[in-house]
Amino acid sequence: MHVSPNPSLTRSALPGILHATLAGSKHGLQGLSVWTQILEAGSATPPHRHDCEEVVLCSGGRGELRIGERSLPFGADSTVTIPRNALHQIVNVGVEPLRIVAIFSRSPVEAFFPDGQRIDLPWAS
Amino acid sequence: MHVSPNPSLTRSALPGILHATLAGSKHGLQGLSVWTQILEAGSATPPHRHDCEEVVLCSGGRGELRIGERSLPFGADSTVTIPRNALHQIVNVGVEPLRIVAIFSRSPVEAFFPDGQRIDLPWAS
Repeated sequence: MHVSPNPSLTRSALPGILHATLAGSKHGLQGLSVWTQILEAGSATPPHRHDCEEVVLCSGGRGELRIGERSLPFGADSTVTIPRNALHQIVNVGVEPLRIVAIFSRSPVEAFFPDGQRIDLPWAS
Repeated sequence: MHVSPNPSLTRSALPGILHATLAGSKHGLQGLSVWTQILEAGSATPPHRHDCEEVVLCSGGRGELRIGERSLPFGADSTVTIPRNALHQIVNVGVEPLRIVAIFSRSPVEAFFPDGQRIDLPWAS
């Protein structure tokens, strides 16, 4: 049982992505990781997948979830659900910072490029 | 893959607790449920436990996590982690609404009173 003030987001090695881990394996969790991120205007995650489920809560900005040929727009006060192993990309398509909380059904989180190569995530999860 | 605007919180059968389910089994998830709740001033959850991990994100108000004799205060921009099966109670100890997002490593979520009796949750999870 643990209470902690949310850490400040810090710039990551992924261009335009600021990150803080709110909860995960360092708090003893195995089945939950929670991150907060800002994607600056013009930035995007790489296309990737996880071997766990993901939920994204958006609190500001204008984003798109891209899956193959499909694009699903989302904005503040909306929720995105992504099934286990679904390839996806999150893109800031607006002019303001895209503010999200990303929630995963595993800790630590693993992420993979479309070719199956593991992504060396630049933060503890 | 699903994008949905967050539903409005509605008053539940639990006194002083407003609820909306943001993600869960109705979106095809098995390992994640995400709820948003407001606990009005003076209100609290019953003491309970879940057979899954829980993370609580607080965005406003003043709360306490009570576990047996222990009380852990929390407020806006803080995160609470609760291990699987840990008995706990969330109490609004302030004068403003306590605003939380509750995240679980299972969907649907099951909750139990301290004596082991299942709580008939008044919302879909």
